[in-house]
Amino acid sequence: MTDRYWLWYPGDLELYHRMEQDFSRVERGYGWPAFWKSEGFRNRVVFRRRYALEQETEFTVYSRAVGHVLAGDKKYPFGQRIVCPKGEVSISIHAARIDAFPCVYVEGDAVCSDQGWTAEDYARPPVPAGWSRYFTRPDQDPARWEYSEETYLPVKTQRIDGGVLYEFETELTAVLHVRCGRERLAGMTVCCGESREEALDREHCYYSWTPDPDTGRTPRCALRFAFIPGGEVELTAIHQYVDIPVRARFRCGDPLLNQIWSVAEHTFRLCTGIFFIDGVKRDKWLWSGDAYQSLFVNQYLLADPDVEQRTLLALRGNDPMTGHINTIMDYSLLWLLGVKEHFDACGDRMFLEFIWPKVCSLLEFCRERLDAKGFLTARKGDWVFIDWAELDKEGPFGAEQMLLCACWGAAAELAESLSRDGGAYRARRDALTARINEHFWDEELGAYVDSFTSGRRHVSRQTNLLAVRFGVADDGRREKILRNVIDNQAVPPITTPYFQFFELDVLAACGRLDQVLDRLRSYWGGMLERGAVTFWEEFDPAVTGTAQYDMYGDRFGKSLCHAWAASPIYLLGRYFVGLRREGAGFVIEPRLEYFPALDCTLPVGGADDFVHLTWDGRSLTVYTTRTGGVLLAGKKRHELPSGTPYVIAPE
Amino acid sequence: MTDRYWLWYPGDLELYHRMEQDFSRVERGYGWPAFWKSEGFRNRVVFRRRYALEQETEFTVYSRAVGHVLAGDKKYPFGQRIVCPKGEVSISIHAARIDAFPCVYVEGDAVCSDQGWTAEDYARPPVPAGWSRYFTRPDQDPARWEYSEETYLPVKTQRIDGGVLYEFETELTAVLHVRCGRERLAGMTVCCGESREEALDREHCYYSWTPDPDTGRTPRCALRFAFIPGGEVELTAIHQYVDIPVRARFRCGDPLLNQIWSVAEHTFRLCTGIFFIDGVKRDKWLWSGDAYQSLFVNQYLLADPDVEQRTLLALRGNDPMTGHINTIMDYSLLWLLGVKEHFDACGDRMFLEFIWPKVCSLLEFCRERLDAKGFLTARKGDWVFIDWAELDKEGPFGAEQMLLCACWGAAAELAESLSRDGGAYRARRDALTARINEHFWDEELGAYVDSFTSGRRHVSRQTNLLAVRFGVADDGRREKILRNVIDNQAVPPITTPYFQFFELDVLAACGRLDQVLDRLRSYWGGMLERGAVTFWEEFDPAVTGTAQYDMYGDRFGKSLCHAWAASPIYLLGRYFVGLRREGAGFVIEPRLEYFPALDCTLPVGGADDFVHLTWDGRSLTVYTTRTGGVLLAGKKRHELPSGTPYVIAPE
Repeated sequence: MTDRYWLWYPGDLELYHRMEQDFSRVERGYGWPAFWKSEGFRNRVVFRRRYALEQETEFTVYSRAVGHVLAGDKKYPFGQRIVCPKGEVSISIHAARIDAFPCVYVEGDAVCSDQGWTAEDYARPPVPAGWSRYFTRPDQDPARWEYSEETYLPVKTQRIDGGVLYEFETELTAVLHVRCGRERLAGMTVCCGESREEALDREHCYYSWTPDPDTGRTPRCALRFAFIPGGEVELTAIHQYVDIPVRARFRCGDPLLNQIWSVAEHTFRLCTGIFFIDGVKRDKWLWSGDAYQSLFVNQYLLADPDVEQRTLLALRGNDPMTGHINTIMDYSLLWLLGVKEHFDACGDRMFLEFIWPKVCSLLEFCRERLDAKGFLTARKGDWVFIDWAELDKEGPFGAEQMLLCACWGAAAELAESLSRDGGAYRARRDALTARINEHFWDEELGAYVDSFTSGRRHVSRQTNLLAVRFGVADDGRREKILRNVIDNQAVPPITTPYFQFFELDVLAACGRLDQVLDRLRSYWGGMLERGAVTFWEEFDPAVTGTAQYDMYGDRFGKSLCHAWAASPIYLLGRYFVGLRREGAGFVIEPRLEYFPALDCTLPVGGADDFVHLTWDGRSLTVYTTRTGGVLLAGKKRHELPSGTPYVIAPE
Repeated sequence: MTDRYWLWYPGDLELYHRMEQDFSRVERGYGWPAFWKSEGFRNRVVFRRRYALEQETEFTVYSRAVGHVLAGDKKYPFGQRIVCPKGEVSISIHAARIDAFPCVYVEGDAVCSDQGWTAEDYARPPVPAGWSRYFTRPDQDPARWEYSEETYLPVKTQRIDGGVLYEFETELTAVLHVRCGRERLAGMTVCCGESREEALDREHCYYSWTPDPDTGRTPRCALRFAFIPGGEVELTAIHQYVDIPVRARFRCGDPLLNQIWSVAEHTFRLCTGIFFIDGVKRDKWLWSGDAYQSLFVNQYLLADPDVEQRTLLALRGNDPMTGHINTIMDYSLLWLLGVKEHFDACGDRMFLEFIWPKVCSLLEFCRERLDAKGFLTARKGDWVFIDWAELDKEGPFGAEQMLLCACWGAAAELAESLSRDGGAYRARRDALTARINEHFWDEELGAYVDSFTSGRRHVSRQTNLLAVRFGVADDGRREKILRNVIDNQAVPPITTPYFQFFELDVLAACGRLDQVLDRLRSYWGGMLERGAVTFWEEFDPAVTGTAQYDMYGDRFGKSLCHAWAASPIYLLGRYFVGLRREGAGFVIEPRLEYFPALDCTLPVGGADDFVHLTWDGRSLTVYTTRTGGVLLAGKKRHELPSGTPYVIAPE
């Protein structure tokens, strides 16, 4: 018996649940759906397959859609057992549904909904049907995500302000379950908080619920604290999550780094469910820029390709593309770079084949916005973001061109991975590189300027960091940028954690590991000093008290569990433990000088392959389940055997 | 207090209910959703309006969507009373919904959901919000259509075949309500039929239901007969319909014509609800070719512009256009001609402004399918239909070019109605006319051939009728066509009622009223002789018994209540009563020689304007509520006064 799945038009599960996610934001009693075009799923699809049956067989098709099964030339309703005689038979399943995406499940021995079915939407050629390992039973409805659940009791209760404050051991995404009399439930208000202060602020806390009078349950939301006016009640938190196994483990001789890893891991897992979301309290929307950074953390922690694919499909939407992803120009470009990152990590060619037309239409959308020099410009309604900072965005903006240049290069390589011609894309990359260097490079300043049309010759870290990170700057220019921009205190510093990712990634790639480690200790360590159990959207050591929870001019507006704050996992894994992809294998180049001891497991490639390092300060043992691994140590390449510990003892 | 409506993104009500309609086909227990691309509604919209309030005012927004109201710079949940101070205020209503289209209702004095709100979908510029006179109360949900209801008791019951056959006075679209014990209900089968034979055929009847055990009700379906095995039960039929008032009345001295009008009226009303559908039993889908003919009947019977607009919007779907309407090339073209017909009849410029981009994108879609000569050709998946007949469709097919030519002309006039330049379209029409005459006209045969590439010189009535009807043939060619095609018995006759519409329309326009009247008496009169209470999808006098209900190789497959069979209303109104549009007014040219007496009211123009004729065989009295009417009688033009009877007495 083969595995059976619910089938749908590929991408529709993602588009449906993305809307559920993007429409789930609730603030103080009102809904706040995301402010961009919704990308709808298909309502009418057909699934087809041809079988050569070696013997008579039976099957049943289940669906909540309206439709029928056509087996040979006879139609059958859903839910009815169908007998097919031996021989060739074409089966098509016609399904229509308005309130959610149509999907079907085929139960049978020879005829069943495993992989091999095609899906059509009456607008494009057939494509392989979509499926997910989470939907394998006929009683499921893929439009209702079945979360895994864990129940938590409060670890602490406190009578305060005429009520009781309940504290859970850590931040959760939970349904609260109140057990008490029906009378008490009616009119009860449960105030939730990521912080103690938020839960106690009945007016400003984000989520205050009246439990369902029949079940005593509240909607699902982010919380660590809950305040309920009146006497104590029996309260449990049902944490709901997508169960994606953690494939990494990090223990070193430095307790602070261990704690940073551990809190980053919890942060990232909370923000990684059906999709990579930005944060668990607010706004819970899918943002391409945030998701891009999550890809890097995922590869060093969960190495789950499915959440990457779901996120990439959900973000991009349907063709033709009618607006930038999240309305943000750079987020469109980061999406494409994310596709490249995902493919390099996972090598799923079938997925790449499916998403390739969406890559092309995104590039087509951008090409309509190129000026005569090939620079990407904004049209009315396009948001040129890059970072919250003083940037000179007049005319074509330098930082965007760095990303575009990277996109042309990525498109070339993706095309070639599909045995298509990438030459035109590569030519565009080369031409754009030359144009950027001609127009944005300021030899006198020894740096790229944000804008060559404004005449202001404004130099920002953002534009120059991207030029280095995406290889637009050659070696000579990179050295100048390091000197004239990165090490130049006169250039305004990066202040957002969002862009700190790019900054630390570049610093680490340039070998500035001491600087990176200092930042890990001060910035992430600083949050831990404040008692953080998850990492925050933003942290400013100078701000204390309730003010530290304020953001976007909104008390408690700051998210205390934010995906982009989990980047220490990537930084530690990539640069300190030193694991990176190389061809079909990997290279590991641990910087043992930073660790008194190390016991670290990291995922490598697909399946459950991993590499495990132990270092006791004297000898290093590397064990991997995967072939094609290389250890770089003492300036030597050591080919790693798979399945046998490889030891480098002190000389 | 002004009128208040539910508001939505214009077209979304139509797209949602079109899917409901297209997915409602059920046959013998299985669903059969329409086999073309579904056109989804928007899930995320915003409604905006700016007010200058002369005093403080209050309002409340109702919606089943997720969202909020932004009044000034403050957000409010739906359902909460909002107070706005005197002065200028911008109000935006943000709404998101997955299972149906988002819509909102604003209750208030100064601030309310009357006309004047714009809607945005985050992809296109703002447009006036959509609304309908059927949705005016806050407790409604525009996703649930509220049908008017009338309850019918059976007019006859008969014990037969171990059960009881219930007969209703006429065909209905009804929910059956069975009143009997719960035990009897469980497992009860109610077999419905348009004919007695169908209801009694438990295996082949289209609809057999088990009533809901709690309510005793069946789903809504077409029926005149119901058979229930076992003893008699209390049975009522709850006829559900959209209440569109009939604005015409026809009584003449000929009882057969009176009955034809009356049965056509009942037929058309059954097939006209939220949309023009093809028939009430099967398939209940929206077909552009069928709808096109319904437009003509509507104008002489209900003159309801709303159902025309709903149908046109629903059929066309979203931009960009990705396939022919109903997959049929000619149905795309007939849609555009339908827009023209609708605009000429109703003159609703605001609607034309809204639908104009969809007209343009349809033409754009067709232009991609033009060959070098400008002839419309089929791509893979395009269905070149025109009629069920032996036609030579090799290469560019003549009949399609006649329609395309008409489309270019219609587009020119529509553009000019919007004060746009129609010159390019007119030039295309003229060029295509010349090309058609050059390539498709066969001077030797004195007729247009279906195909000039096949070499077969096949002459069909279809291609030539369209050439005449849409003015591609000049006067000389028209005369030749009448002689060589229409009056030529060697050319295969029209056999489908669908194309009979075009045939009779052309014959009548050419003055062949005797021929038309003969057909009314024989074809429609023939159905009446068989006891028809509604007119059928097809009628062949040579077939009798149960076989007469067979169609598409399916016993009882024939629809006995089909919209296109209602065309006698148009033919009688347009050519015999002789009413037609002229400029902003109308001309009426009654052919009194066909009527011993006449008492006929027909709608003219918008509102409730009408023209009423009475003729007693000697004197004619014409009364109209509308200015700009002209009576043509005795080869003279009589300007008709409005509000005063105008009498022509015998000389």
